[in-house]
Amino acid sequence: MKVNGQPYRTIWLKPGNPKTVQIIDQRHLPHAFVIEDLTHMEEAATAIKDMHVRGAPLIGATAAFGLYLAALHAPRGSEAAFNQAMQAAAEHLHATRPTAINLAWALNTVLAALEGVAGIEAKVAAALKTAEQIADDEAEACRMIGVHGVGLITRIAKLKGGQPVNILTHCNAGWLACVDYGTATAPVYAAHDAGIPVHVWVDETRPRNQGARLTAWELGQHGVPHTVVADNVGGHLMQHGMVDMVIVGTDRTTYTGDVANKIGTYLKALAAKDNDVLFYVALPSSTIDWELRDGMEIPIEQRGAEEVKHIQGLVDGEIKSVLLTPADSPAANYAFDVTPSHLVDALITERGICPANEEGILGLFPEKKK
Amino acid sequence: MKVNGQPYRTIWLKPGNPKTVQIIDQRHLPHAFVIEDLTHMEEAATAIKDMHVRGAPLIGATAAFGLYLAALHAPRGSEAAFNQAMQAAAEHLHATRPTAINLAWALNTVLAALEGVAGIEAKVAAALKTAEQIADDEAEACRMIGVHGVGLITRIAKLKGGQPVNILTHCNAGWLACVDYGTATAPVYAAHDAGIPVHVWVDETRPRNQGARLTAWELGQHGVPHTVVADNVGGHLMQHGMVDMVIVGTDRTTYTGDVANKIGTYLKALAAKDNDVLFYVALPSSTIDWELRDGMEIPIEQRGAEEVKHIQGLVDGEIKSVLLTPADSPAANYAFDVTPSHLVDALITERGICPANEEGILGLFPEKKK
Repeated sequence: MKVNGQPYRTIWLKPGNPKTVQIIDQRHLPHAFVIEDLTHMEEAATAIKDMHVRGAPLIGATAAFGLYLAALHAPRGSEAAFNQAMQAAAEHLHATRPTAINLAWALNTVLAALEGVAGIEAKVAAALKTAEQIADDEAEACRMIGVHGVGLITRIAKLKGGQPVNILTHCNAGWLACVDYGTATAPVYAAHDAGIPVHVWVDETRPRNQGARLTAWELGQHGVPHTVVADNVGGHLMQHGMVDMVIVGTDRTTYTGDVANKIGTYLKALAAKDNDVLFYVALPSSTIDWELRDGMEIPIEQRGAEEVKHIQGLVDGEIKSVLLTPADSPAANYAFDVTPSHLVDALITERGICPANEEGILGLFPEKKK
Repeated sequence: MKVNGQPYRTIWLKPGNPKTVQIIDQRHLPHAFVIEDLTHMEEAATAIKDMHVRGAPLIGATAAFGLYLAALHAPRGSEAAFNQAMQAAAEHLHATRPTAINLAWALNTVLAALEGVAGIEAKVAAALKTAEQIADDEAEACRMIGVHGVGLITRIAKLKGGQPVNILTHCNAGWLACVDYGTATAPVYAAHDAGIPVHVWVDETRPRNQGARLTAWELGQHGVPHTVVADNVGGHLMQHGMVDMVIVGTDRTTYTGDVANKIGTYLKALAAKDNDVLFYVALPSSTIDWELRDGMEIPIEQRGAEEVKHIQGLVDGEIKSVLLTPADSPAANYAFDVTPSHLVDALITERGICPANEEGILGLFPEKKK
C-alpha cells in the first residue's frame, strides 16, 4: 500500500544489498516513518520481540527472513554444524512471541525447504527463496481476502443507498500487520478503491494503541475516511445503529473457528451479538491452528506492566513516553483474548468465506481433513 | 478517606474562610495532589465542566456549593434581583454537563431551600446550609452503600476460604467521585477495613483514564491491593475465572434499572453475563431519574476529540500532554453508555440491595410511587 504516495510492503530485501532485509520500524508510527536495516538473525528476533514489526502474517514473514539472515552467517565448516546453527536460530526466533501460529509455521516452512536441498550455499539460497515466497504468498492471500470480502461490504452499501458503510475494527489487522493489503482492511481497501463509500471506526487498542497509531495512519495514508474511538466506545456505537459490521484479524484461529486476537476483541464480539451486528474475522489460512480444537487452550502472551503504565506520544516535536498511573500501582498486560466461534458470523479467507466451524473451515481447506 | 494518612473529603469550606470552597483539582492526580480555591460560581462551573471534579455525586455537591458562591456575590438591591441572579446561576451550572442527574437534583434542592426563607442574608445562609447538607448526605449515603454492599463481598470471601475476592471496577466511582467513601468502592473499603482480603482489577478507563489515574491512586492511598488493566482486558479475566464480581457506579439510573455510566461499562456487563460473573451497580438514590423509563433516552455527552487524541502523563518530572494519533485523524468521544437493566444483577443503594427493576427500586423507595 502507499506511504506518501509511494507503494511499500512491510518487509523487503534492500535494493542493491541482498544481505540486508528492511522493515518499517512501526514503533515510531504515526509520528515518524522509520525504515530499519536487519543484517543478523538477532536483529530480526529483536524486531519481533520488541514489536518493531507485529501482526501474525508479518511476524511469520520476518521470522522467515530472520532464518535467511541466520543462514548467511551460519558456520560453513560442515553441513551438520550449519544445520545445527539453523535449528538453534529457529528456536531463538520461535521464542520471541508465543501466540501467533504463523511464527512456527513460517520457521518450519523454511527449515523444510533447507532439508530439501544439499550443500550450504544451496540452503542459503533456499532460505531466501522460501522467505520471499512466504512474503509473496501472504500478500497474495491478503489480496484474495479483499476480493472475497468486498462483497460483504457492497451488499450493505446497496441497502444503505449511498450512505457510508460503517465498519468497526480492533487493533491493526491492516497492511502494517501483514506484508501488503492487510487482513481485516483488505475488504475495506477493495471497497474504497471500487468507489463504495466506507467509514471505519478505529478502536484505539490499548495498551499499545495499534489502532490509534497504525490503523488510523494507514487508512489516512490511503484516504479512507475513519474516526478513532476509545476501546470502550464500540458497544455504544452498536447500540445506536452506528456500526454495520465488525471486521477484525486474528493471531491464531482453531480449526473449529475459535479466534485469538488482540485483547478486547471478545468484548466487541459480545456487543455485536447483542445488537445483531455482523462480526467477521479475516485471516490467511496460515493463521489457522490445525491441531487445536479449543480456543481456550491457545497460549495468551503476558507482556510487561510498563506497556500499561506508560504510553508513548508526540510532545514538543519529540516522541516521549509518559507515566499514566501512580508509580507504584501494579498493572497486568494480557495481550490477546479468545472469541468463541459462536460469536463469529463468518471467516473471510483467501479461498472464500465460510462459517466459523470445523465443517465450514474444512470445506474450504479439504486437504487438511484427517 | 485518607491522603498521605490524613482524612479528606473531596469538597469542603476553607478553614477560617467560609467564603471560599476548596476542592481537590483531580486533573493533576495521581502525579500531584493539588487543592483549588473556588470563590465565585463561575469557578465552580469551570471545575465541573473541565473536570477538576467529576463523578455524579461530587458534581451535584459542587453545583450546590457553586450556588452558595453565587449567593455570596448576587445583587443585594432587591430580593427579586437576587432571585433572578440565582436562577441564572443555576442555569449556568446546569449547562456544564448533561448526563449526571445529580446536577439538576442538587441545584433544585438548593433553589427550593432558598424559596423557603425570606430575606437575602437568610437565603445566603440557606444556600450554604443546603450545600453542606447535600455533601453530608452524599457522604452518609456512600457510607451506607458500604454497609449494605460489604455482605456481598464477605459471602464470596467465605466461599474462597481466604483467597482474595477479585472485584473489577470501571472508571472512578470512588471517594474522589463522591464526597467520601465512594459508591462502587464503598463496599470494597468496608471489606478491606474489616480484614477481608480483596483485590481490585482497575479498568484504565480511556479516554480520561479515571481508573488508572484516580481509582488506582485512591486504592493505593488506602492500602487496597489492586492491578491496573487496559479496558480491553476484563472479558479475558472473566473468561478465566479471575473476576468474582463487578461493581461499578452510575451517572444516571432510570427507575426501571437501566444504568448510564462511563463509556465501556456496557461491554463489561455483557462479559459478566456471558461468564456468570455477578454485576452490581452501586448508587446513592440521588442518581436515580424518577421520570425516565427507558435508559436509551438518557442524553449521552459527547466531549472533545482532543481527549481521545492526546493523553496526559508524567515525563521528566512534568505533567505533559502527548499526541497519540496521526495529527489529522478525526476522533469521537462518547462519554457514557447505557447498560440495560437485564444485565445488572442488583443495585446497591443507601437503603439496601434491590433488583434492577421498577418493583425492586420502588420497594426500597416507596415514597417515589406515583
